[in-house]
Amino acid sequence: MKYSSIHAAQSVVAHCKAKGVQNIVISPGSRNAPLTIGFTEDSYFKCFSIVDERCAAFFALGIAQQLREPVAVVCTSGSALLNYYPAVTEAFYSDIPLVVISADRPSYKIDVGDGQTIRQDDVFHRHIGYSANLKQDVNHALDRIERYAPELLKNTQKDIQGYNDAELNKALETAITTGLPVHINVRFEEPLYNRLAEPSVSPEIKDIKEPEARGLEHIPNCAEIWNASVKKLVLVGVNDPNKIEQEFLDLLGNDPSVIVLTETTSNLHHSNFFPSVDSIIAPIEKSEEKEKLFLELQPDVLLTFGGLIVSKKIKAFLREYKPAHHWHIDPVKAYDTFFSLSIHFKMNVNTFFGRFKNILQNTSSSAYFRNWNSVRQRYELKRKEYVEQIGFSDMLAFHRISESVPENYQLQLANSSTIRYAQLFDLNPSLQVFCNRGTSGIDGSTSTAIGASIYKDIPTLFITGDLSFLYDSNGLWNEYIRADFRIIVINNDGGGIFRILPGKENTAKFERFFETKHNLNVRKYCELFNFEYFFADSENGLNFATSAFYEPSERPRLLEVSTPRILNDKILLGYFDFIS
Amino acid sequence: MKYSSIHAAQSVVAHCKAKGVQNIVISPGSRNAPLTIGFTEDSYFKCFSIVDERCAAFFALGIAQQLREPVAVVCTSGSALLNYYPAVTEAFYSDIPLVVISADRPSYKIDVGDGQTIRQDDVFHRHIGYSANLKQDVNHALDRIERYAPELLKNTQKDIQGYNDAELNKALETAITTGLPVHINVRFEEPLYNRLAEPSVSPEIKDIKEPEARGLEHIPNCAEIWNASVKKLVLVGVNDPNKIEQEFLDLLGNDPSVIVLTETTSNLHHSNFFPSVDSIIAPIEKSEEKEKLFLELQPDVLLTFGGLIVSKKIKAFLREYKPAHHWHIDPVKAYDTFFSLSIHFKMNVNTFFGRFKNILQNTSSSAYFRNWNSVRQRYELKRKEYVEQIGFSDMLAFHRISESVPENYQLQLANSSTIRYAQLFDLNPSLQVFCNRGTSGIDGSTSTAIGASIYKDIPTLFITGDLSFLYDSNGLWNEYIRADFRIIVINNDGGGIFRILPGKENTAKFERFFETKHNLNVRKYCELFNFEYFFADSENGLNFATSAFYEPSERPRLLEVSTPRILNDKILLGYFDFIS
Repeated sequence: MKYSSIHAAQSVVAHCKAKGVQNIVISPGSRNAPLTIGFTEDSYFKCFSIVDERCAAFFALGIAQQLREPVAVVCTSGSALLNYYPAVTEAFYSDIPLVVISADRPSYKIDVGDGQTIRQDDVFHRHIGYSANLKQDVNHALDRIERYAPELLKNTQKDIQGYNDAELNKALETAITTGLPVHINVRFEEPLYNRLAEPSVSPEIKDIKEPEARGLEHIPNCAEIWNASVKKLVLVGVNDPNKIEQEFLDLLGNDPSVIVLTETTSNLHHSNFFPSVDSIIAPIEKSEEKEKLFLELQPDVLLTFGGLIVSKKIKAFLREYKPAHHWHIDPVKAYDTFFSLSIHFKMNVNTFFGRFKNILQNTSSSAYFRNWNSVRQRYELKRKEYVEQIGFSDMLAFHRISESVPENYQLQLANSSTIRYAQLFDLNPSLQVFCNRGTSGIDGSTSTAIGASIYKDIPTLFITGDLSFLYDSNGLWNEYIRADFRIIVINNDGGGIFRILPGKENTAKFERFFETKHNLNVRKYCELFNFEYFFADSENGLNFATSAFYEPSERPRLLEVSTPRILNDKILLGYFDFIS
Repeated sequence: MKYSSIHAAQSVVAHCKAKGVQNIVISPGSRNAPLTIGFTEDSYFKCFSIVDERCAAFFALGIAQQLREPVAVVCTSGSALLNYYPAVTEAFYSDIPLVVISADRPSYKIDVGDGQTIRQDDVFHRHIGYSANLKQDVNHALDRIERYAPELLKNTQKDIQGYNDAELNKALETAITTGLPVHINVRFEEPLYNRLAEPSVSPEIKDIKEPEARGLEHIPNCAEIWNASVKKLVLVGVNDPNKIEQEFLDLLGNDPSVIVLTETTSNLHHSNFFPSVDSIIAPIEKSEEKEKLFLELQPDVLLTFGGLIVSKKIKAFLREYKPAHHWHIDPVKAYDTFFSLSIHFKMNVNTFFGRFKNILQNTSSSAYFRNWNSVRQRYELKRKEYVEQIGFSDMLAFHRISESVPENYQLQLANSSTIRYAQLFDLNPSLQVFCNRGTSGIDGSTSTAIGASIYKDIPTLFITGDLSFLYDSNGLWNEYIRADFRIIVINNDGGGIFRILPGKENTAKFERFFETKHNLNVRKYCELFNFEYFFADSENGLNFATSAFYEPSERPRLLEVSTPRILNDKILLGYFDFIS
């Protein structure tokens, strides 16, 4: 008895199976029973159970982030669905195909005072790729439809099946071809638990056409501009590891007229790339020759690919010193981040460079790379010098941690201090680095990291701050945490990042309403969620802790690194002074 | 230096102060600094700091639920705002004036790849009383506006002030006159932390007109129908304590043609009222004379007031056996819960009865009350008999707890088993009972209870299930928990309520995906959040624990009551058999 007796439920499950939506994260409920039955009874699906929907959605997002395929979350009716919204929006801005499937009540039960009943259709309208509002079966619970909502009978069950198939085709096609999250809302009438041994519907499932590359026609003209330019900046946002062919990276890395700026989340490495954007920009900002230096750095051509950019400094610089040409490569979207976007190459990066490389010439007369490379070498030395002289602090802890991570780890970083500190250091190129930069929220980093770890052939280290760790503590409430999962909590007792901001005052009000100092005990969370607990509050302690921390273990492990709340911001700001 | 230099921030704060929005729950952030400065620097406001926005909003909802006045929540830009949505929707369906104030980025920064930037305006469109989308100041950060968004300069600062004042007036008027939640979105450009010693704006603040009562003209005609009817049912939903004059309650309680059905959340007491709706309906459902009995119970007139109804059984009954007339009294809304609404008396209940009582006659020939009262007396005896014979279980635990609560407590109940069990017992009339029945979610009951407790002149007992307790565990992450706050967690190791549902199967899949069995340790949460911990897993243990539990203490206390996961549903279903 594998099938729900409700046609709409069977259809949703059949469409998901046909389109390869294999991972299903279910939160408990009764209204969604027809879906839960359908998904859990078919061994094709890999089903997960997570109670808190906020965590469930970020967990699913983590899986989808790694597999780069749609992952579904399934919930009951009412406010359950709204708890998905933070993850839906993260998915929307990070191009992650989260498929939200919500069970709903019959339409005539909305806004008549029934329990667990809200206006679910189109509820994510501002941040969703497609909203499929399925129609309720009329062959089910016919007596109630006749009594309460006879107008529903204007449609035959066949009409409804056709409508629902079309909606489901559209929703899943959107998720697969654009990578955007989609929402499928399904109305169910009781009884909800009836089953059939054989399916009673055969949904019409449409094949998906891969979207064609667009913008190829601009390539010859762009190549001409490129060849004629002596200052070309390539800036890479959030980007999956091992996605871009080495040949193309070498092409960029070995061109004297090209600077490639990468971020921690770019997952791109080449000895000539510049991996710490802020360490280049910050000294210029402080320089007396600021204007002259920025003009020297200002590119003729800016070529970007990948998702969102972490560095605020590079955004501010490029908005003020706009390139004459800004081209962005992405199969779906192009943000005009620097208010100077001229061409969107709607294709993947390898397709672009496959064409582009044939018409490129090395502009060997340019000193663009050489000049800035000496700046880079200088700050790398200065940074080394600086971290040797500073006391124990967030910055020193990040430095030591970045050295400690073994090769071939997945590194999941929380917002917001964590990712910003990580940007300052060169990470081992074998690390795969991820961070929820779509909305840059602190609301689901733990859940995302755990979801992202479950299918990995390498272990995962998740680094987070104390506020983001506590915020998503329910992220640990599930059965899917691997023994090789590692968490490092940098505990500076509040939102240390707010200390860095200009203009803030150092008062009790600041501590309470901005920094939100707290005294929560991270160790107790470890007892609660069965993690082995490690602790360090000094450089030696940290070195000692990390020497054992990554070793194989029977339980997952958490290392709390306690840093001095008051000193951290001074040491960070001092760094930018020191390298200037 | 009490004032933010940003006009829009000053305006928001000034409007809130003028309209008596005194309680402000702030979550940390940088973009909202101008608001945080304004609210925290004026001693008129009572400011609270809560990090997790989901909890912050439910906490604010709890305050507003008790004070029956608007309470504001203030957050930074990005997904922070989305975490408010569950509480916003609860407020929407429970008529609680939650005022959401979100800091936003300048409009030209939306959808260009900036961090912590989403589409905030109108984001709650499906469940909000009013969305005020304030315009960004143009006298602030003029250089950036000129460079990046010169089109904003089409409006002068004076135009903007006028527009924003009108929007703020509308938003707060909606919150105050309708009790609905509202959303105020405010765009801020950096610098965010600048202050002034004196305000630089004098906002135009409109007086609020109380809405007039509507429907008074129907009263004579309705009184005539009422006097001519021999079966009149009064059904009361969620209702604040001490709201309705005793004279009117006596009028209804002493009329032989009137049955008053109340729920735990009705907060209405009279020896002739029927406080356990399901205990009346369930035996009829099981009776061989079902049809005849339901026809006897079917009212000619149904008079309702208060918010949402908990009992599913009464809804199903009245939808099938519709009254000839259904009148609902409420100053704002009337749901057609039974598909038979004829008149909405748009006024408060005392206004209605003040007029109505003068034209009422007692229909002394009716046996409606007398007949059903004997049914009531019978099930009250049977219930007593039943609870004396059952083993330790959810039902017995609720019975003992309901007896144990001292006089004059506030009782906050979680969804969903908790409120349903509480409905089965007659509670002490001195208790004030509340439950988030707007959306009936499990997502914020703890936070709501804590918010609701802080200004009370009586102590608060919060009863919750294990899943809802764990779901909102971050609700305990704040500094506002009083030493006399009490929590009872009925721990049946999962969503026991799902066992009661018809059609479910008892399999490992059921345990994982419906019931969501877990093994989390409630005691450890007490250590984490500094609660004194009590435990009981037997009737004697429970009696012993409750004998000390309510006594004054230095720390808040939590009592975990462990009940047998498997037995609970059988005992509950057995109850309805037994009283039939």
